[in-house]
Amino acid sequence: MTRINDDYAKLRAGYLFPEIGRRVREFSAAHPDAKVIRLGIGDVTEPLVPSIVAAMHAAVEEMAVRETFRGYGPEQGYDFLVDAIRANDYASRGVALDNDEIFVSDGSKCDVGNVQEIFAKDARILVTDPVYPVYVDSNVMAGRTGAADEVGRFAGVTYLAATAQNGFVPAPPDDSVGPIDVAYLCSPSNPTGAVATKAQLAAWVAWARRTGATIVFDAAYEAYIRDPELPRSIYEIEGAKECAIEVRSFSKRAGFTGVRCAFMVVPKALMGKNAAGEPVSLNALWARRHTTKFNGTSYVIQRAAAAVYTPAGQAETGAQIDFYLDNARILREGLVAAGFTVYGGVHAPYLWLETPGRQSSWDFFDRLLREAHLVGTPGAGFGPSGEGYFRLSAYNSRANVVEAVARIARTFR
Amino acid sequence: MTRINDDYAKLRAGYLFPEIGRRVREFSAAHPDAKVIRLGIGDVTEPLVPSIVAAMHAAVEEMAVRETFRGYGPEQGYDFLVDAIRANDYASRGVALDNDEIFVSDGSKCDVGNVQEIFAKDARILVTDPVYPVYVDSNVMAGRTGAADEVGRFAGVTYLAATAQNGFVPAPPDDSVGPIDVAYLCSPSNPTGAVATKAQLAAWVAWARRTGATIVFDAAYEAYIRDPELPRSIYEIEGAKECAIEVRSFSKRAGFTGVRCAFMVVPKALMGKNAAGEPVSLNALWARRHTTKFNGTSYVIQRAAAAVYTPAGQAETGAQIDFYLDNARILREGLVAAGFTVYGGVHAPYLWLETPGRQSSWDFFDRLLREAHLVGTPGAGFGPSGEGYFRLSAYNSRANVVEAVARIARTFR
Repeated sequence: MTRINDDYAKLRAGYLFPEIGRRVREFSAAHPDAKVIRLGIGDVTEPLVPSIVAAMHAAVEEMAVRETFRGYGPEQGYDFLVDAIRANDYASRGVALDNDEIFVSDGSKCDVGNVQEIFAKDARILVTDPVYPVYVDSNVMAGRTGAADEVGRFAGVTYLAATAQNGFVPAPPDDSVGPIDVAYLCSPSNPTGAVATKAQLAAWVAWARRTGATIVFDAAYEAYIRDPELPRSIYEIEGAKECAIEVRSFSKRAGFTGVRCAFMVVPKALMGKNAAGEPVSLNALWARRHTTKFNGTSYVIQRAAAAVYTPAGQAETGAQIDFYLDNARILREGLVAAGFTVYGGVHAPYLWLETPGRQSSWDFFDRLLREAHLVGTPGAGFGPSGEGYFRLSAYNSRANVVEAVARIARTFR
Repeated sequence: MTRINDDYAKLRAGYLFPEIGRRVREFSAAHPDAKVIRLGIGDVTEPLVPSIVAAMHAAVEEMAVRETFRGYGPEQGYDFLVDAIRANDYASRGVALDNDEIFVSDGSKCDVGNVQEIFAKDARILVTDPVYPVYVDSNVMAGRTGAADEVGRFAGVTYLAATAQNGFVPAPPDDSVGPIDVAYLCSPSNPTGAVATKAQLAAWVAWARRTGATIVFDAAYEAYIRDPELPRSIYEIEGAKECAIEVRSFSKRAGFTGVRCAFMVVPKALMGKNAAGEPVSLNALWARRHTTKFNGTSYVIQRAAAAVYTPAGQAETGAQIDFYLDNARILREGLVAAGFTVYGGVHAPYLWLETPGRQSSWDFFDRLLREAHLVGTPGAGFGPSGEGYFRLSAYNSRANVVEAVARIARTFR
């Protein structure tokens, strides 16, 4: 029989969200009248805004006519979209990029899952804990780790605990951790909602440049930052182009979780080294990966993404993000009033709360579902340092958010 | 510095199509008045058919309204599409599949590039020669090969020559090649246009079951088969579910090269073995890969694909394929009249011709471009056994195809 990739067996059984789904289905089957409100998976609920809808209809019409029909596009994305990204997301904040440093894709999950392919088979990985599981799982599948221990930490991976003590933004490690090839950072953070300051990111950039590590900076939630002093791109930090890849998404910025568009920036100044110790362009490696295994994002979807950058698109998607941030504020105020210690939810769509008495996060999940008919995400699902914490997301209708707060008040006051 | 994946350095410089693009740009710059007709890259030219356009508009409208908006969908694809695939592509031909054996994706290039991840790091690969480059390149990048020799064959890969002698459908290898884990087959073939008969596929299935190999069967062009006796799915062969994965695409079947939708079938009866020799479900491995590194195909695009299976969609896309097949016939007849020896182009959109006097395929490329202002694809770009051959594609307007034939007649008669 064909020999399989044995590293898959190291993955922990049951991805977090399927397990949540299973428990919710069981509860709903036993309590068919309970109106369960889901604040678990970070999935948007508001419809696409009018300027995006109009752009999609127009693009579909182009595809219906021979003269304007588009077949294969450039794998890196059409210039109309890359130009808009470059001007609006970067040049406007003082970051100069070339078009061939931006790679349009169909989603950040793909990008952060695939980017590890360009690194050495035994590259040393660093993540914060708790963390978005894809960073680690994609490296486990590629054979860069040993087995997981009983709390879910994989041998060979360096974990930095994100705790209340460090404001959920760990400082770079000291050299005792040994050489690191790739460090994954996420700001605003999924799951904690913490946002790194310029000083904190500058410390990471300085560390990466000193040690020769590459930072994979996941900025999928940057649009939720409302404080102009907080960095929305790691490239706002001097020297970051020499040490960082940046991941961006339209999913939470423009309601694209079901539309599918994202991009990744790999600067041409960013070098790795080959086995002979010679410098090799990571941009060239990623371009090769992207063009060999990907055939570009749908034309209609790229037109939808480009519409985000029109004046109307900016205003409409900005209002949508304001709506979710208001949801976050309402949840936050309700939780605080009910006696919870709450983090995040200010420049981020996620709230990170301490479970009462630091109860196990899965026990709290069950209690919240049973007593308040609310679904959240147990912190332990994001890593051992998430134990005793719980994630709630601001993605829901206003009515459901208000109702959720009322149920929390009834249940916990 | 971060250590990189050194296997990328083994890839041959310059992917085939960029090199073609470079030569065409140079020629066009030197001859700005030449009206170059491109029969090179296999990219469709006809617009989306009305039923697909209508389905896309309707789906966009759903996304514009909160009550019908869709966020994240199931990573494997929506049931409305998977049901249609299962019923129309398989049940109708006597192949029973379950929905969870079908994985909707954004393209076959992704699927055939990614599928190797579930196999052992040192899995032994077999391909035919000439071959679609992604099968080999994705395995080179994963470190399963040695370096390439001067004709481009990678050490450690088993190549079976597809030649005029075997009708461009090689028989399975004898056991002297040693154990094979994964064999890539493509029918109708890109680039040769050859179609495997049931007897030929049955021989491959028997070989795979006897030796324990897994066949990755690329059926991206199955819709071009018009002879009911020729198999459109490998699962029409008894026992194939125990030894084969099948790749399908909407790109050439419904004009989706710029729309992006495909799917892959991984039967639950298909097992590999782990290092301990125990059987492991390849379906379970691929499900884990697909859900960990992919977030589903765009909802609007899945609705477009589902429209292919409506009665109107079947009629309209069938007429579109008839149109391309007529182009192939016209090209074929013109080439034969001009004295060429031509293969393919009957149940396939590709014609595979012998270069005059078995001239080098790149020299013939240059001559065809210079003298007839026609662009095709040099056979050598698909592997050493493609030397002395040339691929032309039927994807163009009727006027351009007729003009191409006239130029061929003038140039070669």
